[in-house]
Amino acid sequence: MAARSYDAYREDRVGRANVGDTAPLRAYYADLERMHAGALWTVANKIEPWEPKTESVPVVWRYADLREPVLRSLDLVTPEQAGRRVVFLENPGRTEMSAAVGWLYSGLQVMNPGELASSHRHSASALRFIMEGEGAFTNVDGHRMTLGANDFVLTPNGTWHEHGVADDGTACIWQDGLDIPLMNALEAGFYEVHPDLQQAVTYPVDDMTKAWGNPGLRPAGAAWDKRYSPLFKYEWAPTYEALHRFASVTDGSPFDGIHMDYVNPATGGPVMPTIGASMQMLRPGEHTRAHRQVGSFLYQCAKGHGYSIINGRRYDWRERDIFCVPNWMWHEHVNGSAGDDACLFAFHDLPVMKALGLYREQAFGDNGGYQPLLEQ
Amino acid sequence: MAARSYDAYREDRVGRANVGDTAPLRAYYADLERMHAGALWTVANKIEPWEPKTESVPVVWRYADLREPVLRSLDLVTPEQAGRRVVFLENPGRTEMSAAVGWLYSGLQVMNPGELASSHRHSASALRFIMEGEGAFTNVDGHRMTLGANDFVLTPNGTWHEHGVADDGTACIWQDGLDIPLMNALEAGFYEVHPDLQQAVTYPVDDMTKAWGNPGLRPAGAAWDKRYSPLFKYEWAPTYEALHRFASVTDGSPFDGIHMDYVNPATGGPVMPTIGASMQMLRPGEHTRAHRQVGSFLYQCAKGHGYSIINGRRYDWRERDIFCVPNWMWHEHVNGSAGDDACLFAFHDLPVMKALGLYREQAFGDNGGYQPLLEQ
Amino acid sequence: MAARSYDAYREDRVGRANVGDTAPLRAYYADLERMHAGALWTVANKIEPWEPKTESVPVVWRYADLREPVLRSLDLVTPEQAGRRVVFLENPGRTEMSAAVGWLYSGLQVMNPGELASSHRHSASALRFIMEGEGAFTNVDGHRMTLGANDFVLTPNGTWHEHGVADDGTACIWQDGLDIPLMNALEAGFYEVHPDLQQAVTYPVDDMTKAWGNPGLRPAGAAWDKRYSPLFKYEWAPTYEALHRFASVTDGSPFDGIHMDYVNPATGGPVMPTIGASMQMLRPGEHTRAHRQVGSFLYQCAKGHGYSIINGRRYDWRERDIFCVPNWMWHEHVNGSAGDDACLFAFHDLPVMKALGLYREQAFGDNGGYQPLLEQ
Amino acid sequence: MAARSYDAYREDRVGRANVGDTAPLRAYYADLERMHAGALWTVANKIEPWEPKTESVPVVWRYADLREPVLRSLDLVTPEQAGRRVVFLENPGRTEMSAAVGWLYSGLQVMNPGELASSHRHSASALRFIMEGEGAFTNVDGHRMTLGANDFVLTPNGTWHEHGVADDGTACIWQDGLDIPLMNALEAGFYEVHPDLQQAVTYPVDDMTKAWGNPGLRPAGAAWDKRYSPLFKYEWAPTYEALHRFASVTDGSPFDGIHMDYVNPATGGPVMPTIGASMQMLRPGEHTRAHRQVGSFLYQCAKGHGYSIINGRRYDWRERDIFCVPNWMWHEHVNGSAGDDACLFAFHDLPVMKALGLYREQAFGDNGGYQPLLEQ
Ligand SMILES: [Fe+2]
Ligand SMILES: [Fe+2]
Ligand SMILES: [Fe+2]
Ligand SMILES: [Fe+2]
Ligand SMILES: [Fe+2]
Ligand SMILES: [Fe+2]
Ligand SMILES: [Fe+2]
Ligand SMILES: [Fe+2]
Repeated sequence: MAARSYDAYREDRVGRANVGDTAPLRAYYADLERMHAGALWTVANKIEPWEPKTESVPVVWRYADLREPVLRSLDLVTPEQAGRRVVFLENPGRTEMSAAVGWLYSGLQVMNPGELASSHRHSASALRFIMEGEGAFTNVDGHRMTLGANDFVLTPNGTWHEHGVADDGTACIWQDGLDIPLMNALEAGFYEVHPDLQQAVTYPVDDMTKAWGNPGLRPAGAAWDKRYSPLFKYEWAPTYEALHRFASVTDGSPFDGIHMDYVNPATGGPVMPTIGASMQMLRPGEHTRAHRQVGSFLYQCAKGHGYSIINGRRYDWRERDIFCVPNWMWHEHVNGSAGDDACLFAFHDLPVMKALGLYREQAFGDNGGYQPLLEQ
Repeated sequence: MAARSYDAYREDRVGRANVGDTAPLRAYYADLERMHAGALWTVANKIEPWEPKTESVPVVWRYADLREPVLRSLDLVTPEQAGRRVVFLENPGRTEMSAAVGWLYSGLQVMNPGELASSHRHSASALRFIMEGEGAFTNVDGHRMTLGANDFVLTPNGTWHEHGVADDGTACIWQDGLDIPLMNALEAGFYEVHPDLQQAVTYPVDDMTKAWGNPGLRPAGAAWDKRYSPLFKYEWAPTYEALHRFASVTDGSPFDGIHMDYVNPATGGPVMPTIGASMQMLRPGEHTRAHRQVGSFLYQCAKGHGYSIINGRRYDWRERDIFCVPNWMWHEHVNGSAGDDACLFAFHDLPVMKALGLYREQAFGDNGGYQPLLEQ
Repeated sequence: MAARSYDAYREDRVGRANVGDTAPLRAYYADLERMHAGALWTVANKIEPWEPKTESVPVVWRYADLREPVLRSLDLVTPEQAGRRVVFLENPGRTEMSAAVGWLYSGLQVMNPGELASSHRHSASALRFIMEGEGAFTNVDGHRMTLGANDFVLTPNGTWHEHGVADDGTACIWQDGLDIPLMNALEAGFYEVHPDLQQAVTYPVDDMTKAWGNPGLRPAGAAWDKRYSPLFKYEWAPTYEALHRFASVTDGSPFDGIHMDYVNPATGGPVMPTIGASMQMLRPGEHTRAHRQVGSFLYQCAKGHGYSIINGRRYDWRERDIFCVPNWMWHEHVNGSAGDDACLFAFHDLPVMKALGLYREQAFGDNGGYQPLLEQ
Repeated sequence: MAARSYDAYREDRVGRANVGDTAPLRAYYADLERMHAGALWTVANKIEPWEPKTESVPVVWRYADLREPVLRSLDLVTPEQAGRRVVFLENPGRTEMSAAVGWLYSGLQVMNPGELASSHRHSASALRFIMEGEGAFTNVDGHRMTLGANDFVLTPNGTWHEHGVADDGTACIWQDGLDIPLMNALEAGFYEVHPDLQQAVTYPVDDMTKAWGNPGLRPAGAAWDKRYSPLFKYEWAPTYEALHRFASVTDGSPFDGIHMDYVNPATGGPVMPTIGASMQMLRPGEHTRAHRQVGSFLYQCAKGHGYSIINGRRYDWRERDIFCVPNWMWHEHVNGSAGDDACLFAFHDLPVMKALGLYREQAFGDNGGYQPLLEQ
């Protein structure tokens, strides 16, 4: 075996490890390895970096590219074979864990009219953001939600869920978002198929939205002690209206424009314990300032077009395109239109970071808050 | 002085005090009184009752009676003299503490167009429910709310607040609700007049409603650590719409029909730490079953007409009438119309009871859940 | 009837009511009274005071006076007649509600060896602080606590409880503390006698103290979702030791010397939802500075002697004396010994004030923080 | 390139992916890869396992083996070169992340008398468990803790900390425990060296232990809003005493004997937001039943000897040995002595699992709760 280097991470700085390889040390390291141990100073600077360095890279997944292969899967595999016909997004830096960014999974799922997937549940928390088609629905623990474009729907951790498209609908495509990679990393993933394969719908259609999706009001006395939102579906029309109502009374965030979080109405907190979501509107011509955050983000353009600058490089997007902002990367957003607004849906892992006390954010201080563009 | 009786509360039951007066005991009691003390057994059964016995009595305050005197106050006193022109509701069992029921105060306030009250703040939490008139507004800590009939507005504990009516408005009447009696009972009431008499309005009109009054969405990243709701105004139109949306997917409460709580959207909890509020809709012909609760309630009929049966007696009400349900009294509600719905606004002290771990409720078990009417 | 005055509370200050009685107004007020209403400006300044004005007065109850009458009750009444033989403390300003201060009740209870009271439970939260005697015990929900001088024991809201003294013990006296007056004020008091009159002791003696009364450690995985402490007994020896340990590393509070709160080890919060308790040590010669608080306090001198200055008047106390500090009264404490420490046990209603968002405190700013003594 | 298999994870079960490789599908997969995407059904069964399958393996690190190499590091590297002289524990299944088990790091650190490490802080939460030597101390945010064998000390997330050994002490060895791997996995790790290299000790020695390490008592009114315990050091003597006190009133846990959690006395919760710790005592001859938990554990034998059975294999341990129980592995513990107790210190990531709603546990149901031993 060629001599392995143990001093790859040396730093010449007080308080950091700075030990060169010597023959006695190499012998020592070999001794340690035999007893499942190592010398901390050989890895200390690697495992205690000055700041996070993400493994993920920025990517834009263009709907113009993906739509055709997604639809093609309808012909390539049956639902029975595939379970679900999904094209998942694979970050080049995270192929091993099938992640789109950080510990977040995402995919584009397609179903034909009249299809109904089998019901199951799992430790992973899941959400859907509807991209196109008519007649899609999701059943969650006996509640049925009908779905239209830009509707946002939850199938939380531990709930029985299944998707389908009505007989008189069209082929439907939606984006799935899950924390499957996180569940695997934490070795906490359990999975069950529903004993009856299909669950019964035992509540009126869209009952949770009608009971819990009202401004400043909730069902009196209704107990809700789950860790996720009882509002399973957030519809697009009132969401878009809310953005405009909010816009009429706020200057907006310098970093995110008119930015609203989807919340659990029973607590005011995030929609699920491990995944949060938001919708933001960039006003005509708006160009936000850059900041960075401990957390990973996956965006879908719900309306309009524009671009984002991520760690100094420009990424264009238009309606239905999906892109990611990896952990602790500088990012700013630009609406490409001077006349119309642009809307970005996002989901992220900030609830994890905040639950563990790890969240930070930082504004880009130089250049008036705007990143200089790097040579491409 | 005639001999005072010390054995008024005797009960012949194991575990309860049952001591008759004797000469030596009377001498003993007199000794104790001189040292600011007493014998527990002379009062034990009084101060440890088997269940609560409220001092309040049910009352209906009819708007047909009160409206004229309320308006008359406009001529009788100036705002400068009176501070505020308010006719307050005085429960016959609570006259000493100027309470409408339990520890809750309520009054009908009237203002002329062009009037603006002076700004102040206090430990008491306050709310308004608008009864009639055009052009009313309330300012709270720099936020202005415009007000229409059946709007519900908060001026929470510790906030600077003032009311007014626009120059082009009409005389406006609203119901005030406060916990002034509770503040006095707890000896916790502080009061301040604003140093400038008037506060500046520093935010866009109705900004809190437009920012926080959206279904399932909140301003992203907005910190809100106050103990009261950032949603200062709950408007009638979306509230009434919410009742109907909820009604379309629920059987309703057996005791309260279609019943929704006004909530703090930042927490999902009550609107203020000491006062909660709700709106309920009785469907055409609905007659709810009876229950009782630890807590005091003050209702205003916001729409329709009907009656409530409280501890076996019937109390009729119609739009704008106010009535109370005292603590631990059986009550059931009846919509007087077979064709239209009836709506009851209520505020109450359940947040106090729940914060202190004292809340209980009980369903009326006999007679199919309906109280037999007592002879009147 | 002589003409009643309606203008007793006038204040000549902007923003306050200042309306003189006139004949038309008197007629108006009479009209309002007939409809269970009144004019707010006749009472506004009374019910919205600038700051709290307590009804309670400072009192010292000297054990030298009370001990003999307490023991005399053993001969005057049987336990069967009296339920419990207790001399309760009656604040001259709160006789109507049998309160020692504010909404707090207190009494001195005595039992003979071999006696065992009947078991009961109630909405009121209760505590005991042991004053003298050998062999006392308390049973709470199947747990038995043995009791010695200066031990502090809980019988929380809703728990079955009963007291007794072992056959080989001596007559025992302890101070009871309860929130009975608060329960009555809130009309929230329920009371039950145990169906078997006596409860079974089903756990090892002092098990809760041995399981939960350990520094920085708790039973692993033990669920405790009650609103009160699982540590039912706080013993004197470790408490006194803790005061000295803490004293060795702190300068102490300027207002309270070495001051520790008894806490619920499952939450770090107060021992019960409506009553808190603390023990404080005044070091030899210590004279604390004055402050005032929204809350009512009842102290017992557990060790030593000294005095407190309350709203400018001096109140001397020695071991076993009990005294109160009413709401929002200035108070400072003085250890009467230059050579030994003095310890004050206290219980209070701060958990109520804090749960409702009403707590305030203020340091006495003049005269170096010390109150000038008023002429007596 | 040899043909890659895309159907490695097929399962012949309804609701699971079961798609065989075909030429058209391979072409399709290649298309997807070019656009940073994949077909979910090729990986679905891999990334959604039926239950967790940990990457970690059980290991015992024997102090008899490690002690000598640890001491040898004193001669091999200077503190200036190494930063800290630590031999870290490397789980054979987690070498890539330098983890001892799951996402937990551990190492044995050694210091000579008179040495003082430089002060720094980081996102990782850290703890120490003292193994041998006299005179060790740790400084945390201006507080100094002196340390003896089996003392447990925290240097929480974000606190400035440094370790040293007094001039008149001896070479000291302790176990470090950190969540460094988790911080790296979450890409949330920040690191800073103290600007002065050394921090000032500004509080009395051991002040936090003397202020917060008292049974059922805390400093009155002391604010503590950090997410970690103010009790930075948990000493061995009172901990061992607590185990025996608890043992005198409990049957103990069937799975863990006399088991106590170290807690944050300000909340009753875990000592740090990402790491919990406990001490457990196995009574003479005790053999616990098996269970498994979502969470990773690292144990150190603090007293006595015995063995654990982990997923059917026996692992012997004696005082100072360290061993791990990986996620979701069956485990049971056996005291090797019939006459003396054995104590196991453990730290784990249960606070992470619980904060994210992922915790589960399961008792081993067969064979009376005891695992059959596998052939070795
Ligand atoms: Fe799923
Ligand atoms: Fe951002
Ligand atoms: Fe007011
Ligand atoms: Fe009711
Ligand atoms: Fe009692
Ligand atoms: Fe005080
Ligand atoms: Fe460190
Ligand atoms: Fe275990």
